[in-house]
Amino acid sequence: MTFVVVGGDAAGMSAATKARREDPDMDIVVFEKGQWVSYGACGLPYYVEGEIQRLEDLVSVTPEEFREERDIDLRTGHEVTAVDPDARAVTASHEGGEVTVEYDHCLLATGAESVVPPIAGIDREGVFTLGSMTDGKQLRAFVARSRESSPVEQPDRGPACHFLETCEGAVGIVGGGYIGVEMAEALVANDFEVHLFQRGDRVLTGFSNATSEVVADHLRDQDVALYLGSEVRAVDGPADGRVEAVVTADDRVAVEMALLGTGVRPRTNLAEDAGIELGPTGAIATDGYRETSAPDVYAAGDCAEVDHVVTGEPDYVPLALTANRHGRAVGRTVAGTPTEGGGVAGTAAVKAFDVEAARTGVLDHEEAREARFDPVTETIEAKSRAGYYPAEGTVTVTLCADRDTGRVLGASLVSWYGEGAVHRSHAAVAAVTEGVTVADLADYDLVYAPPFNTTWDPVLTAAKVLEGEL
Amino acid sequence: MTFVVVGGDAAGMSAATKARREDPDMDIVVFEKGQWVSYGACGLPYYVEGEIQRLEDLVSVTPEEFREERDIDLRTGHEVTAVDPDARAVTASHEGGEVTVEYDHCLLATGAESVVPPIAGIDREGVFTLGSMTDGKQLRAFVARSRESSPVEQPDRGPACHFLETCEGAVGIVGGGYIGVEMAEALVANDFEVHLFQRGDRVLTGFSNATSEVVADHLRDQDVALYLGSEVRAVDGPADGRVEAVVTADDRVAVEMALLGTGVRPRTNLAEDAGIELGPTGAIATDGYRETSAPDVYAAGDCAEVDHVVTGEPDYVPLALTANRHGRAVGRTVAGTPTEGGGVAGTAAVKAFDVEAARTGVLDHEEAREARFDPVTETIEAKSRAGYYPAEGTVTVTLCADRDTGRVLGASLVSWYGEGAVHRSHAAVAAVTEGVTVADLADYDLVYAPPFNTTWDPVLTAAKVLEGEL
Repeated sequence: MTFVVVGGDAAGMSAATKARREDPDMDIVVFEKGQWVSYGACGLPYYVEGEIQRLEDLVSVTPEEFREERDIDLRTGHEVTAVDPDARAVTASHEGGEVTVEYDHCLLATGAESVVPPIAGIDREGVFTLGSMTDGKQLRAFVARSRESSPVEQPDRGPACHFLETCEGAVGIVGGGYIGVEMAEALVANDFEVHLFQRGDRVLTGFSNATSEVVADHLRDQDVALYLGSEVRAVDGPADGRVEAVVTADDRVAVEMALLGTGVRPRTNLAEDAGIELGPTGAIATDGYRETSAPDVYAAGDCAEVDHVVTGEPDYVPLALTANRHGRAVGRTVAGTPTEGGGVAGTAAVKAFDVEAARTGVLDHEEAREARFDPVTETIEAKSRAGYYPAEGTVTVTLCADRDTGRVLGASLVSWYGEGAVHRSHAAVAAVTEGVTVADLADYDLVYAPPFNTTWDPVLTAAKVLEGEL
Repeated sequence: MTFVVVGGDAAGMSAATKARREDPDMDIVVFEKGQWVSYGACGLPYYVEGEIQRLEDLVSVTPEEFREERDIDLRTGHEVTAVDPDARAVTASHEGGEVTVEYDHCLLATGAESVVPPIAGIDREGVFTLGSMTDGKQLRAFVARSRESSPVEQPDRGPACHFLETCEGAVGIVGGGYIGVEMAEALVANDFEVHLFQRGDRVLTGFSNATSEVVADHLRDQDVALYLGSEVRAVDGPADGRVEAVVTADDRVAVEMALLGTGVRPRTNLAEDAGIELGPTGAIATDGYRETSAPDVYAAGDCAEVDHVVTGEPDYVPLALTANRHGRAVGRTVAGTPTEGGGVAGTAAVKAFDVEAARTGVLDHEEAREARFDPVTETIEAKSRAGYYPAEGTVTVTLCADRDTGRVLGASLVSWYGEGAVHRSHAAVAAVTEGVTVADLADYDLVYAPPFNTTWDPVLTAAKVLEGEL
């Protein structure tokens, strides 16, 4: 019995590990084109920032450990060039040549790649993405170099800085999603003047409007220059190919570096070449067991579609927990215990300087209506601890529910870091997953003690208020 | 239409307020024997500690606000002496005499009172309880007096202090529940030498063994002298009636004050006199709408039974959220919208110095077996943030599930303060309430980002591990 895994990050290594635990005799081969496996890409902003010292620290299990302790035939530096479902074989090229391995089961865990938008000058030197370990290394090197050449000196901030004559110490971030927001923090911490360009009219568009506003205000308080509703038209610079400015319809902002945080797309070319079906989102289509249209070929992680727990429809939500979870399910399945990967609620969290935010489920009204719901949204701001408790803070909770059934569709929470917006989302995730009504959520016997919440946790208060609106 | 409420704290004032919101024309009379209404008794330890400056700060809504803004006929200083379900009338005595009011609906919200165990010398001067605002005031006065007479001077701690010749600066706490643990923190913060006596073999017996151990170790680290399995036999002292020592089978510990944190019991005498049925727990029996055996007489809060969401059986869990929740439901019901109060999961949280803990559901195996479950418990310790993230910490999660069905029965979590054990319990409360299996809980798409958890939140890891045990 041979299990061939294409891709050695979260989904791939979770599957390989779980299969090995369940079946000591299986032959498990993992092809990874790079040298890094099982790394925490979500930690890259903290590595660039300098909070994490060594790139190796992001690796949870080393290649040697996989090979020696888990008896997995991990072949790094092997790029898979073909998957042949008819021959049930995978072919990979490596420095020494090419190898073909026949499989009983195969997992495509090819991940995602950063989207590089079609902007003039996007290939200039000094334009970065942050998807891979290599990206992280290059960005950290840039930060280190730049700090060396212009040692820590607080740049002049404010409107005037948009028209600096020199671009030194200024950077442009294109995109106001997780990466954009986290990298704004990382770069401000390194004394860069950060300009953040967002095409839409708010940052963190997957979160609620209220969350976006709190985060945007906080970014501004941290001296991040925010350009909302501002599409980047070009990355400009001199003939030598360097970056000198980010250009929008209204602005030409001098920068020495531009970072693209414009999302990711699934790596599907291997699957497409193999005749494996993609789904409506453009990611690899799978059934509940993450099996693709090719028998015994599975797909999991950032290359594959998932089932949304609220809409019941296929969705593309490339996040780490899903990759781990679905990888693990596939590992069990191929080892003989068919295991569904389970739905996804689209839960996500972000820390932006001193603010934390989480979201889950469906918040966008258009998306909700497409799934035949009649969405109603309410936002409340409530104290994060008992009113009389010395430490003061608030949590802003947005809840979205279906008017007819009262079902909780989605939630978005934001607070100061440490005031618990993120962990409080646990109740909302459960409500969204279980199809609970706002009335039932409002009745949850959540924890209460003065150092942690008001008698009604902000999540309960939001549910009560929204219940009144239905 | 007249609604008469007996007792002006959480349940009573929630009911009165909700009824007023739903029905502007109803006559709403609240009898409260004391002067304080709607106060946060849970905040008393922080008031005694000195973290909260004024006792008034614990009051969320003042009597004047209830009267003037909410149009509630609140009569403080009125002690109800009789409820007559046949005559549908409530009689209260006050300084000026006696008053009888006929009701269409009546709510008994008489609360609970501190249990005073039958210990020799328990009536000595210097023995306190902490259930009421008056208790809080007296304790704070004691702390202030004591600090004045022996200004902040770190007492000698350690085994030797058990046999101090003078009891000055030493206090005994009888009972290792919430109050005992919170007051240990409050008194250590005021430089008292704290001796905590617990009859059982661990503190916080409603939590898991693992949680109790973490908290006990931490109490000892904070120089609290813990006496486990140590029943207090007497509070000893000289003939003038003062407290001088706490006496157990093994020890005679010199103290100048003893605090009883030995639990509460429901105040049911009014109900009993009215011929209203008590339940198996000794609290007032109610149906799903919190209606008692007497028609149109409701009971809510610390005097009443609740329905446990796991066992489906009546239970006695006197906590603030339930009082608010059930009071509110009764307010809606009497105003014309029959509303069930909803079940209770027995969720609770406590902060003990720099540790936070939460519990929910059924953890005790005997209790689980009585409810015809076959309980299996597993405890894990997991990192509270991504392994590579600079701030380090762990969360210890205990989960209990039914072997046959996999249903999550209960959870107990503990971590350093700020590492999120308490808010992470939100997922467990939902799971317990919804009757979710550990396999389904392990599949929840909980939030993940490096500053908040590992890819699998500790709650998910615990569910995965327990799933493997079933």
